[in-house]
Amino acid sequence: MMTPHFSIAVLCLAGQALSQLTGRGFPDCHNGPLKNNTVCDTSADPLARATALINAFTLEEKLNNTGHASPGVPRLGLPAYTWWQEGLHGVATSPGVNFSDYGSFSSATSFPEPILLGAAFDDDLIRNIADVISTEARAFNNFDRAGLDFWTPNINPYKDPRWGRGQETPGEDPFHLSSYVHALIDGLQGGYSPKYKKIVATCKHFVAYDMDSWNGNFRYQWDAHINSQDLVEDYMPPFQSCARDSNVGAFMCSYNSLNGVPTCADPWLLNDVLREHWGWTNEQQWVTSDCDAVQNIFLPHGFTETREETVAAALIAGTDINCGTYYQQLLPRAYEQGLFNISVLDQSLVRQYSSLVRLGYFDGDAVPYRSLDWSDVNTPASQQLAYQAAVEGITLLKNDGTLPISIGSKTTIALIGGWANATTQMQGNYAGVAPYLHGPFYAANATGATVNMVGVPSGQGDPTTDSWLQAWPAAEAADIIIYADGIDDDVEAEGMDRNNIDWSGAQLDMIGQLASYGKPFIVMQFGDQLDNTPVVSNENVSALLWGGYPGQDGGVAMFDILQGKAAPAGRLPVTQYPSDYIAQVPATDMSLRPNKTSGSPGRTYQWYTGNATFEFGFGLHYTNFSVSFAENTDIGSTHAISDLIMASNETYLDKTAFKTFEVDVENTGSVTSDYVVLGFLTGQHGPQPYPIKRLAAYQRLHNITTASTQTAALNLTLGNLARVDDHGNTVLYPGDYSLMIDTQPLSAVNFTLTGNATVLDSWPQPPAERFQTSDYFVGGYGSTYAGEAVLDAFENIVEN
Amino acid sequence: MMTPHFSIAVLCLAGQALSQLTGRGFPDCHNGPLKNNTVCDTSADPLARATALINAFTLEEKLNNTGHASPGVPRLGLPAYTWWQEGLHGVATSPGVNFSDYGSFSSATSFPEPILLGAAFDDDLIRNIADVISTEARAFNNFDRAGLDFWTPNINPYKDPRWGRGQETPGEDPFHLSSYVHALIDGLQGGYSPKYKKIVATCKHFVAYDMDSWNGNFRYQWDAHINSQDLVEDYMPPFQSCARDSNVGAFMCSYNSLNGVPTCADPWLLNDVLREHWGWTNEQQWVTSDCDAVQNIFLPHGFTETREETVAAALIAGTDINCGTYYQQLLPRAYEQGLFNISVLDQSLVRQYSSLVRLGYFDGDAVPYRSLDWSDVNTPASQQLAYQAAVEGITLLKNDGTLPISIGSKTTIALIGGWANATTQMQGNYAGVAPYLHGPFYAANATGATVNMVGVPSGQGDPTTDSWLQAWPAAEAADIIIYADGIDDDVEAEGMDRNNIDWSGAQLDMIGQLASYGKPFIVMQFGDQLDNTPVVSNENVSALLWGGYPGQDGGVAMFDILQGKAAPAGRLPVTQYPSDYIAQVPATDMSLRPNKTSGSPGRTYQWYTGNATFEFGFGLHYTNFSVSFAENTDIGSTHAISDLIMASNETYLDKTAFKTFEVDVENTGSVTSDYVVLGFLTGQHGPQPYPIKRLAAYQRLHNITTASTQTAALNLTLGNLARVDDHGNTVLYPGDYSLMIDTQPLSAVNFTLTGNATVLDSWPQPPAERFQTSDYFVGGYGSTYAGEAVLDAFENIVEN
Repeated sequence: MMTPHFSIAVLCLAGQALSQLTGRGFPDCHNGPLKNNTVCDTSADPLARATALINAFTLEEKLNNTGHASPGVPRLGLPAYTWWQEGLHGVATSPGVNFSDYGSFSSATSFPEPILLGAAFDDDLIRNIADVISTEARAFNNFDRAGLDFWTPNINPYKDPRWGRGQETPGEDPFHLSSYVHALIDGLQGGYSPKYKKIVATCKHFVAYDMDSWNGNFRYQWDAHINSQDLVEDYMPPFQSCARDSNVGAFMCSYNSLNGVPTCADPWLLNDVLREHWGWTNEQQWVTSDCDAVQNIFLPHGFTETREETVAAALIAGTDINCGTYYQQLLPRAYEQGLFNISVLDQSLVRQYSSLVRLGYFDGDAVPYRSLDWSDVNTPASQQLAYQAAVEGITLLKNDGTLPISIGSKTTIALIGGWANATTQMQGNYAGVAPYLHGPFYAANATGATVNMVGVPSGQGDPTTDSWLQAWPAAEAADIIIYADGIDDDVEAEGMDRNNIDWSGAQLDMIGQLASYGKPFIVMQFGDQLDNTPVVSNENVSALLWGGYPGQDGGVAMFDILQGKAAPAGRLPVTQYPSDYIAQVPATDMSLRPNKTSGSPGRTYQWYTGNATFEFGFGLHYTNFSVSFAENTDIGSTHAISDLIMASNETYLDKTAFKTFEVDVENTGSVTSDYVVLGFLTGQHGPQPYPIKRLAAYQRLHNITTASTQTAALNLTLGNLARVDDHGNTVLYPGDYSLMIDTQPLSAVNFTLTGNATVLDSWPQPPAERFQTSDYFVGGYGSTYAGEAVLDAFENIVEN
Repeated sequence: MMTPHFSIAVLCLAGQALSQLTGRGFPDCHNGPLKNNTVCDTSADPLARATALINAFTLEEKLNNTGHASPGVPRLGLPAYTWWQEGLHGVATSPGVNFSDYGSFSSATSFPEPILLGAAFDDDLIRNIADVISTEARAFNNFDRAGLDFWTPNINPYKDPRWGRGQETPGEDPFHLSSYVHALIDGLQGGYSPKYKKIVATCKHFVAYDMDSWNGNFRYQWDAHINSQDLVEDYMPPFQSCARDSNVGAFMCSYNSLNGVPTCADPWLLNDVLREHWGWTNEQQWVTSDCDAVQNIFLPHGFTETREETVAAALIAGTDINCGTYYQQLLPRAYEQGLFNISVLDQSLVRQYSSLVRLGYFDGDAVPYRSLDWSDVNTPASQQLAYQAAVEGITLLKNDGTLPISIGSKTTIALIGGWANATTQMQGNYAGVAPYLHGPFYAANATGATVNMVGVPSGQGDPTTDSWLQAWPAAEAADIIIYADGIDDDVEAEGMDRNNIDWSGAQLDMIGQLASYGKPFIVMQFGDQLDNTPVVSNENVSALLWGGYPGQDGGVAMFDILQGKAAPAGRLPVTQYPSDYIAQVPATDMSLRPNKTSGSPGRTYQWYTGNATFEFGFGLHYTNFSVSFAENTDIGSTHAISDLIMASNETYLDKTAFKTFEVDVENTGSVTSDYVVLGFLTGQHGPQPYPIKRLAAYQRLHNITTASTQTAALNLTLGNLARVDDHGNTVLYPGDYSLMIDTQPLSAVNFTLTGNATVLDSWPQPPAERFQTSDYFVGGYGSTYAGEAVLDAFENIVEN
């Protein structure tokens, strides 16, 4: 076996050689066959450069460079390029990313999953994290270990707790996601309009993905039925933020159909909405299919009659890259059959290579990011940021005063549960190789306490009491009992939706027994939400913290909060529903509003009429806050809609500034703490029914010391005030508005809009044959097998 | 690193030492503390021996030896013993089985999964396989690598294609399973009443397990609602065969409740039915819980108020061993609370150790099986039997005359699909380490042909076209195209029921494209059933073979059948339903009969009123058969029921011989072949509705040469003729009977019974508070979450 030292040296040399000589990773614009092609002319504009390149392709070369694994054009010295990189919360294992086994590029900073990042409600944090990810991605790219485009973020609003991929999202609220993703893309792409894009981000899955496998409904063949109002109000905003407001480089169309049309074959969606309506028309912006979403247009969707029609339909609709091989195999036959014009393919190829031009792929060391190397990966600052992100997201759900708790060398801790010694569990899915994984057991030991760890399996998958006999003596001997458990990717994952949102019987039995010792007993809950009713109602549970998938330093973040070295200020980014919620609404029901006939109690905090176990935005602190609007806030002001519109100089009226509300937050308690200012709108305006409330602004204030005050500035736009009509138009309505701070309002301000309802954004209407009857949108069962029995129960339903 | 040769020598020495010195694997009756205890007196009867041993235990020692991992009693020189060995289709990886990493005891013969063994319809084969398993188990035991009891078979009738554990069973038919398990236990235990049991078999899961996770219903908390008629007719027969007719050594109670009572806490089930009614009262017969089924009585079943009541209820009901630790933890507290009498625990312990006495655990080299060693594992005969079993089970479902097909050194084969290069996939679940795994790719190469293998992922889990581009040139170049695919443990498994019985869109696309080459195209289907309608209807699919999980030599068996080196004669052991079947009946509906109100089309070939894609018992051959009843068969005979009863000298009237029907089978074709004689009863007798037909006897005839005749003897008992009334009584009814041979009858004989209906077996009635209203048994939804929406659709249902 070689010594590690020697191996590292070899790798570094090899990497440097690649960088200096623009090896197979980059085209050689100095000496290669392309040197005289305009694509190598850095003074030409990107469109001209990419067009010149594609013009040099033969027909066969064009047809061949249509999949995620582009072979390039060896004849032209154009290297192969893999379009498929993942980077959801750090550079991630994927076809285009190549971690080394050890030494340089053997790891990358592993941040918490977005569901916990969402809980931080801190856009600056998100921007900083994205900046680290793109820096590390560039370092990997420079050493031929990654491409330059990454298929992140997953920005579908997480409206149903069963969805197995909810962990990948920042939560359920469309405004929150829109704001989050705007900051994220800034960090990933290196600004909204940089000369050289740092990396290309890919907003996915466009649109209405939301379900993997539920009761015989599969993502590959499922047809999401959504009316225009719900579509624009809930499903579209994050994507509008990506395309229209953040200049994201790429989109991914999804597996599902939307109202009868597979999204990757939907010209209304990919052209009318995405490109035309949102002005996403820069030459370098491209759409990839989700992996084999083009194949599934043919089967199982059965949307097209032939395979050739399938690829032509997708290409013409605007799917530029096919993740998979269907384009490569079948576009030649489709072309022979005259099913598409070569100019359509040329346009897709120009988009792809314009994108690479914008990334500096052809520009060698002129690109500033080309100097990044292994020393820029896993920097101390990045590691600190991963820790900080976990701290900011962790949410305190219950505390009887036990926390913060002192832990010292004389403390004995019983640390029990399936997450007690978590390692890769902490990363969740779409992860890379972390430089380290400090779980609860590591962190507990780091406190200096005596730790008796019993790694009882979580009991959500396959319960077993085998190790329980070790738990009781540990609990008996302990000063503090901690149960670290919840769920993980064994029960919620891609391809695997949940059909249960309860703690399992074995878990509740364990919690009950550990609580019975009458000692300080803390439940550290990981993974996505479970109905915590029995945990909260057990008075012997001293405290409950939720940590999601907290990333490489999640255990340390938890224990620092436990001890008060950091103060919790995270807020739930989703509603925590009671367990019977999922019996009340099928996972396939895409309606947001409650429906008396179907029995749906509504979805998300905006519409859910039941009693949430914990509501969206809930989160306790170690201190108390007093909140008030700044003195300069008009109370009870009135605004004429016509005046507001008149004053606008925005291309998109909804982006017009309405008002900045300054909110003073005073820490009236005894612990320095962050505080998330959540601004919710309520009031009677626009179409009935009215939402219970809706998030219009948020800002995280940091380190508010005791007895001091910080001021948040909530910038509301007309878009924040507007609502969506049943044609999908975004409309500013006259009526009463109230802006409330926090979930149990600590302060509120009212204002009134007067005049005529005015359309801020006129939604491009889909072809007439879609969105037909109201029946179509209720119940929400698509092409279903087992679901058909259920469908019978819904067949007489009419819209509420 | 040590050389393998040296390592093997060391292991053999160590093993021999253990055997000779009765090391920690066995108690030392010569020199140990027990030497003067009656348990070591081989002349004493087993009950006295075990009783003497238990009498030597302290209370604490008794309470401590109640889990599957018994610590034994070091004070007495009684070794630790692990009760949990698996051996479903070969000695299998499990807590009590310890495969070595290499050399001796590094593998064991791996037979096909029971679902394929069931397709052989060959009880002698099953007996022989069981004999190999028990021989190999004994060899492992002699070298301290396994215990002596094995938690096999899983003998729940496989009535719903969604069940993730259906592969573990021999199929759907209760008579078939009863006959199969009778032969199996003979082979496993070394006879029905041997002096020394070879191993102890464990019939599981008693009773009505049948579902793991479906639509929010989980095995750990699900309550199966079954009326007495269905219970006795369908769910009980294999267990009656185990307990009453085969003297099986152990039972396992299941996770589910039956009509409101968790089976492991059900004295009616474990005492009134199992022990009293079936006479399963030998002192060495014990019941183990499924793993942590005792814990789940408390949570999630919520059947008991306290944990102490839970363990007392299970122990008193007759659950002797707790797989898990709940007994060990909680019986002491339950005993302190006076919740059970020590004699109950003594009885359970006596049962356990009587069982070990019967296994010769205390008898050293007096036990003939103690001479078995590594040379008795993986013998050539065993390997041949594993191959033979696969050949016998593989079932030909479609053949346009392409098969058998000649393959030679000049043949080019394209072998494509997720099973093309199958290895451990072929074993399915509950498997051990096989000595080799010869999959399709191995077997294709062994033919001498040129093989282009493309291991396209199966597409049932996560479809991808990534390797499809390699498939087309392979198909283009091929003389024969073979698609080896289906499903595997990624989509059907313990804890994972299916909610789809279709080939996936990607699979059907691949089949369609491969078929389009117009070459000989054979689909080799593996795993459990999928609706083959689109495969059968594609006229370019030349042939379709089903191979289940064929074990270590499955690929060779397939290719030998393909080439005609062996002739197919397997029969489907389950109904292959059309895909919409699972939309018509909830997985939780335990009723067998069709129900007009609920919409259930009925379950199994006996009751299913729809059009099966392939019916139970279907299977094609390479030759033709002519079948006739032997000349000595009475045609149209009449029998007085009173005479039949009068002539009986059986303790159990249903075991009374009725008649042996001799069936002559002539091979009228040109290929030597096995033929399975299936005898189905039909006719108007007993309670309405009448089943479509029911299997009453079967026999596999071997190697019927062309133009020759073999004769099967179908031995029918009164029990075969009887039906079950709505109280669960087994009754012989007057009326017309017809015995038909084969699924599309090739011959039939009629007879008539006259006189009064007579009870053959009077079913012990459950406590009055159970089995209440007819509503309770229709729809079949237990404690369900998502299922509640469906329940609404069924709530007005009354019994059909």
